[in-house]
Amino acid sequence: MTIASHSTTREVLTYQAQVETVCQAAQQATYELVASPDDRIDQALNLLAERLELQAEQLIEQNQLDVETARAAGQGTAFIDRLTLTTTRIRTMSQGVREIAALEGRNGRVLEERRLENGVLLQKRAVPLGVIGIIYESRPNVTIDVAALCLKSKNAVILKGGSESLHSNRYLVQLVRQVLADTGLPAAAVGFIDSTDRAATVHLLKQARYVDVLIPRGGYELVRAVVENSTIPVLYHAEGGARLLVDASADLTLAVPVIVNSKTNRPSTCNTLDTVLLHRSIAAELLASLIPALLQAGVRVRADEASLALAGPLGPSLEPAVEEDWTTEYLDLTISIKVVETAQEGLAFIRRYSKRHTEALLAQDQALIDQFITTIDAATLLVNCSTRLHDGGVFGLGAEMGISTGKLHARGPVGLDELSTYKWIAQGNGQLRD
Amino acid sequence: MTIASHSTTREVLTYQAQVETVCQAAQQATYELVASPDDRIDQALNLLAERLELQAEQLIEQNQLDVETARAAGQGTAFIDRLTLTTTRIRTMSQGVREIAALEGRNGRVLEERRLENGVLLQKRAVPLGVIGIIYESRPNVTIDVAALCLKSKNAVILKGGSESLHSNRYLVQLVRQVLADTGLPAAAVGFIDSTDRAATVHLLKQARYVDVLIPRGGYELVRAVVENSTIPVLYHAEGGARLLVDASADLTLAVPVIVNSKTNRPSTCNTLDTVLLHRSIAAELLASLIPALLQAGVRVRADEASLALAGPLGPSLEPAVEEDWTTEYLDLTISIKVVETAQEGLAFIRRYSKRHTEALLAQDQALIDQFITTIDAATLLVNCSTRLHDGGVFGLGAEMGISTGKLHARGPVGLDELSTYKWIAQGNGQLRD
Repeated sequence: MTIASHSTTREVLTYQAQVETVCQAAQQATYELVASPDDRIDQALNLLAERLELQAEQLIEQNQLDVETARAAGQGTAFIDRLTLTTTRIRTMSQGVREIAALEGRNGRVLEERRLENGVLLQKRAVPLGVIGIIYESRPNVTIDVAALCLKSKNAVILKGGSESLHSNRYLVQLVRQVLADTGLPAAAVGFIDSTDRAATVHLLKQARYVDVLIPRGGYELVRAVVENSTIPVLYHAEGGARLLVDASADLTLAVPVIVNSKTNRPSTCNTLDTVLLHRSIAAELLASLIPALLQAGVRVRADEASLALAGPLGPSLEPAVEEDWTTEYLDLTISIKVVETAQEGLAFIRRYSKRHTEALLAQDQALIDQFITTIDAATLLVNCSTRLHDGGVFGLGAEMGISTGKLHARGPVGLDELSTYKWIAQGNGQLRD
Repeated sequence: MTIASHSTTREVLTYQAQVETVCQAAQQATYELVASPDDRIDQALNLLAERLELQAEQLIEQNQLDVETARAAGQGTAFIDRLTLTTTRIRTMSQGVREIAALEGRNGRVLEERRLENGVLLQKRAVPLGVIGIIYESRPNVTIDVAALCLKSKNAVILKGGSESLHSNRYLVQLVRQVLADTGLPAAAVGFIDSTDRAATVHLLKQARYVDVLIPRGGYELVRAVVENSTIPVLYHAEGGARLLVDASADLTLAVPVIVNSKTNRPSTCNTLDTVLLHRSIAAELLASLIPALLQAGVRVRADEASLALAGPLGPSLEPAVEEDWTTEYLDLTISIKVVETAQEGLAFIRRYSKRHTEALLAQDQALIDQFITTIDAATLLVNCSTRLHDGGVFGLGAEMGISTGKLHARGPVGLDELSTYKWIAQGNGQLRD
């Protein structure tokens, strides 16, 4: 099997036709992929890991073209850093691919099985979703991560990366497709929209005939644009950020470390703490140790009137919180604090301001813990531990594609289970419907 | 608890404000509903069944207003029949509600549980979706079916029925809400868009802030309109209809009964057979008994050239099939027949024309059966039995909301499991993220 040169293809086809051709070929590839033995997929992934390391030099060369373009465009240091591939980062990528290869496959797994009264054997079996479109920004390692996860789950994938990493992504995709061809798997299972034109992305959002689900990975603006314009179902992460209620019954020795860890472990992530709610009965005592700990960790503290009043001599180090603080996902080293008169007021506050992503409680009162678990509606609830634990890796779910804040299909980490759907299979010997 | 009179509400609020108010109140009700004990829900459902029978006379009176309007509008007999409520039909409805009450609840069910290395207890628990919007047509029994299924699964529901059954639906919803109030459950958990204005429906499609999922139930035109205009995730049934491949290895004694049952058991349903593919080696033999059986059952047979040639003296009873026959969901007593040279050609045909709803195979060759199961992508695959068995009731899944042809979240019958989502709960004693 040989792979058509990208440049020839690009010259001949319009963007629209190119997008459709890539999507249709990916759908065709699913039939071959789903019938391929698991060990051939794993073999391909391990070969991919090996080639990534062998071809690191050429990959870095291509990546440098992107880095130079970004520098010329005046991009900042953080941007350039995320874009840049090094030997170490390539080794991390290939190690990630090996770890994905080592996971257990899902295709064909029997999820339910029963013999019906009429003698039919009914099974519900896990199967791949089909064709997954990924629209992402910036970091070229995403290209390899998502291609590996999709292949492992026997999904075909259409990749549409950001223009800033076009050369890196093009090289990586060619590498993956060559590996597929060399392993006897369909190269078209990894499709690539080789274009920096926004129109190509918009056209991809309309390929419901060929693409089963879209996953946007990037800033909220990208996500919103995909959700609003797609005719394909979208798995996505809307807003994040967490609230944590410290009840009167809480073990206060846990409070400072849990709050500081939830806020400062990696402040730009979606499972980071934004607002702490303190039961009035423990507020003064906790604030006396919490505020110095937060300030020492470089956190800017925005406090409601009651907290300011209870903070005593620490008050001048705090800023007054306003209504907007209760709705903001800071994504930086800022935290807001509010005193509640009762645990019920705290739960009502969480219900009102929850992003339905991550919510937390510190309490020993079992009735309150049960009420929190039953009546707070979010992807993950944490009781007496850090909000930063809401993570597929920490949960032991293996590699993940991201976090979904929707309620349908996937809620929380999106891993191999969530990249699968199911089908029903009924096997009989002539059974009819009455 | 008392329930505000609908007429007062309708006079004061605009349609838009009414829709938003109903949706917001339903979302508020979910917190109370999810915390209500299972037996209180069951008690409410059984009381509803009882009241339906007790108030059958008043219900029929209201229903007659709808029937008279439909008659005056010149609606046909079938339409009037579907709309009409009788004592017997009301008893069937109330029996259905009792059966739903007897099902096992899903809320809080532990789907996965493990102790992480750091000591955190991680659980994945089933929870209700939240607020479900149902947009449906014609038959007033749907109002009770879906309200009962949603309540059983502890979901709030917003009902938007067809204008033709407005009086019936209004009476039924008031009955349900009174039962909820009398049982100490939130009446707002069953919301009703009391309007025949299309603008009200369109506005409902935009209430993503309050409504978690929409389920349109009705003709494909209604479904398409909902899917195209909704900003809320939609669970829906697009096209249906089935294909059935009779392989050379098939037990031919099964073929005629399975095909006739798949076509004629209830021709207007979505799991009805549209196209039969016959392996050439058994085509002549099977056609000799199949064609008379189909004709005798009143089926119109549309055959490709090869079948016509093989049908011999029966040929003149058949119509020639055209390309459109392979794509059409007939929804009536029409069938199309095509001869294939190999089983592979049959599988390729199915892949090309499948609506991904129901596909079937008659074969004894295990390798072919395995290939069919692995590589044909549909909600339900049937091997050696009738396509009409694709049904939640037949599958033993309990009452269902319909069939979903999407791949995300629900595929095939939508019952209590599919009206649920999950959340992750992590309980620890101070665990932090490294």
